Amino acid sequence: MPTFRPILYIVANVLLALAATMLVPAAVDYAHGNPDALVFLLSAAFTGTCGGLLAAATRCQLNNGLTLRQAFLLTPLAWLATAAFAAIPFLFCHFPDLSLNYANAFFETMSGLTTTGSTVLVRLDLTPEGILLWRALLQWLGGIGIIAVAIAVLPALGVGGMQLFRTESSDRSEKVLPRAQQIAKAIGGVYAGLTVLCGLSYWAAGMTPFEAVVHALTSLSTGGFSTSDSSLGHFENPVIHWLASLFMLAGSLPFVLYVRTLTGQRDALWKDRQVRSFIGFLVAVILPFSVWLASRGDHGFLDALRLVAFNVVSVVTTTGYALTDYSQWGNLAIGVFFGLTFIGGCTGSTSGGIKVFRFEVMVVLLRTHFLHLLYPRGVFSRQYGNRQLDDRVLGSVIVFFALFFSAYSVLTIVLMAFGLDFITSASAAVTALANVGPGLGDVIGPAGNFAPLPDSAKWLLSIAMLAGRLELFTVLVLFMPQFWRA
Amino acid sequence: MPTFRPILYIVANVLLALAATMLVPAAVDYAHGNPDALVFLLSAAFTGTCGGLLAAATRCQLNNGLTLRQAFLLTPLAWLATAAFAAIPFLFCHFPDLSLNYANAFFETMSGLTTTGSTVLVRLDLTPEGILLWRALLQWLGGIGIIAVAIAVLPALGVGGMQLFRTESSDRSEKVLPRAQQIAKAIGGVYAGLTVLCGLSYWAAGMTPFEAVVHALTSLSTGGFSTSDSSLGHFENPVIHWLASLFMLAGSLPFVLYVRTLTGQRDALWKDRQVRSFIGFLVAVILPFSVWLASRGDHGFLDALRLVAFNVVSVVTTTGYALTDYSQWGNLAIGVFFGLTFIGGCTGSTSGGIKVFRFEVMVVLLRTHFLHLLYPRGVFSRQYGNRQLDDRVLGSVIVFFALFFSAYSVLTIVLMAFGLDFITSASAAVTALANVGPGLGDVIGPAGNFAPLPDSAKWLLSIAMLAGRLELFTVLVLFMPQFWRA
Repeated sequence: MPTFRPILYIVANVLLALAATMLVPAAVDYAHGNPDALVFLLSAAFTGTCGGLLAAATRCQLNNGLTLRQAFLLTPLAWLATAAFAAIPFLFCHFPDLSLNYANAFFETMSGLTTTGSTVLVRLDLTPEGILLWRALLQWLGGIGIIAVAIAVLPALGVGGMQLFRTESSDRSEKVLPRAQQIAKAIGGVYAGLTVLCGLSYWAAGMTPFEAVVHALTSLSTGGFSTSDSSLGHFENPVIHWLASLFMLAGSLPFVLYVRTLTGQRDALWKDRQVRSFIGFLVAVILPFSVWLASRGDHGFLDALRLVAFNVVSVVTTTGYALTDYSQWGNLAIGVFFGLTFIGGCTGSTSGGIKVFRFEVMVVLLRTHFLHLLYPRGVFSRQYGNRQLDDRVLGSVIVFFALFFSAYSVLTIVLMAFGLDFITSASAAVTALANVGPGLGDVIGPAGNFAPLPDSAKWLLSIAMLAGRLELFTVLVLFMPQFWRA
Repeated sequence: MPTFRPILYIVANVLLALAATMLVPAAVDYAHGNPDALVFLLSAAFTGTCGGLLAAATRCQLNNGLTLRQAFLLTPLAWLATAAFAAIPFLFCHFPDLSLNYANAFFETMSGLTTTGSTVLVRLDLTPEGILLWRALLQWLGGIGIIAVAIAVLPALGVGGMQLFRTESSDRSEKVLPRAQQIAKAIGGVYAGLTVLCGLSYWAAGMTPFEAVVHALTSLSTGGFSTSDSSLGHFENPVIHWLASLFMLAGSLPFVLYVRTLTGQRDALWKDRQVRSFIGFLVAVILPFSVWLASRGDHGFLDALRLVAFNVVSVVTTTGYALTDYSQWGNLAIGVFFGLTFIGGCTGSTSGGIKVFRFEVMVVLLRTHFLHLLYPRGVFSRQYGNRQLDDRVLGSVIVFFALFFSAYSVLTIVLMAFGLDFITSASAAVTALANVGPGLGDVIGPAGNFAPLPDSAKWLLSIAMLAGRLELFTVLVLFMPQFWRA
């Protein structure tokens, strides 16, 4: 049974930071003369008060770091507490023709913080600036939050094969934290810098400054919230589409590699096994898919390439912007996009999903297994890049797959029990677990919206988004009786 | 590169046996005065001639048994050759309003030999006896064939975790074959005996002798071909439904355990870990499902229990009889039946699918992995029943899951590329790989038929049925370049 005090103290500090962040949309709404300014101000006051009281009650020194179990407990708890308070403005803000209950507000918030991007809001184009900015800020904060977790917490916990990346990020130092703080600062700088660059590019390409800020925040975080119901389709400007593809991709690469590139190792990105496979995979999907789309005659090749590249990058990086309703391209396109929803970006990025390195580890396992069938007494090395895949790493990756597909199956069936049809249920399950955003089918497809779903489905999907974001283990381990024993 | 001669000699003998079997429907059609008698006679003559010539050309001594690679090659080759010849009568027989091309004939034959039970035939109620009996015989032969493969070949090859059952069936003897032949005879006796018992029961319950024979042949083999388009729904007799549930279940239990029960170990079936889990799983699904169906008001509880038990047993044992169109029970039922299609029966039976023991091995793996997360230095034993799960067995089971779901995903997307909708494609993929029979959706659902699918889809599904039947590895290993090297 872990001691709660230091955990709650950290959560309290997260809430204080959240309260401070609420002042940003308050200021923007005040500047635009929107009445929501007061809503954000009061939400900030409430969140700040709760955070302050909790901090006062649990104040303690964190010099000793956290135990394994405390770290397991902290991660989902911090995310849940943040979502619970960050949902407050959605309850009281002024939407056109809409008022949200807590199920909807929590769903929207969790979709933001997990950088999923599924939305229950309609008529975004008429929605006041404050709330649009708030959604984008949630995604941006969620993005940097998950990079921190993926680099500092998950490898140390031995979750989902991420031990592979342990020494890469901590350079063989046993004490993870001091070194991690240094890296975290550098990564935060890169993340902020790329966001600024992205915003300036969007602005230069023709977005309004506000649109540029919102989309920059949700591109780098591979989040996918937009300022328009038609998402990036609102901007009839190929330059913006290509820029978005570029910055979604930037958000889905391992951020430590940016730091290394900037600190002297110029080829760090290009030499990385994971990045190479990821880019290779995208090219292998986008090129034939574009040729196929162009061959249908509705689009020229460059046009088809832009549409396919944007939508494939959007789904595989788990961003979830839509440019067109690709489900109109026929059953093959639906099948391909459904499959792509599972893939995900690189680890150590803001992307969700199963992630490319896990598929590669699985291929290594399959290959050696088939060789064993043919040469029962043979010994075959299992390598990923220049690293040996030991049994522990393999086990973690396998268990991750098993958990992901089990969670996906159970979630699909429960959603069907709520009366949803097969493709809606199956695609909602995977889009939530992989933090992508849009589903497939008439209701939640790229041209659709999650609002019509029953509240029970929204609660369930909110939990699924969180579980998927924290790589499943971190949430599920809390359900083991052993976790709570001495 | 394996030597082909002994392989081809065995295949030749299989073809000779097949030719002899063709004389049975020939005789039945002759007795009924159906013109198809000649078709079966000529097919037998052609198959017998081809088999005889091949046997003469490849005659050799098999005293030394087969090498590993020869065994890998023999299994799919024997199945393919049998299907190629067994399809001939379908090309020339007289169906009401129907003539089959080779794609359809091959699909129907492969569906029979793999005990899948998907059909492209319509108006079965008006179809001549010979062809109905031929379909049933294919399933019955396929059933005993797969038991032989599962007991004598797969464990020795180390495929899919079936090493777990190696010593159980071969009693630690290194020379598998002589002992296997003894066991095979005993199992053949049990299989035939149960079939006779099943046929007599059906007859006593009210089927005509011909219907009783056909359904006995397709119940014990968990095949699912029927004499009517409405399958077992044709018989409005609860006793027949319960008998069918019982004998489908009998066909899905490990046949070696019947032999042990008869040779003195009275509790062999009941004490078996796999059988217990399987029965427990069925009860855990059927009871709440029946309560749910009864609560909807259309059926009393006993009525609901009969419908649910029949259809669940039919899908989980991979038989594929239909009693009602359960897809009319709503989205929850569709989701549950879709999920059940993956499960499968016990290993060493005529059932297909992933099979219960593999799910249990996966649960053991998950459990020890979570314990490792909490106690990184702990040592946890991995047991299945009273057997230790070594890395080799675990690896095989994991790779089986990976292959199954990869094959399922690829197959679904390719079927969508042929223009089929999502639920048709997804359910066709799994029903073929798991050798169940019916799919879901308007086209291939329990009230539907595979005839409307394009020929390309039928060829693909025929291969999928075979690959699924032979537990994937056995077919896929042939695609490794290393297999064909010296």
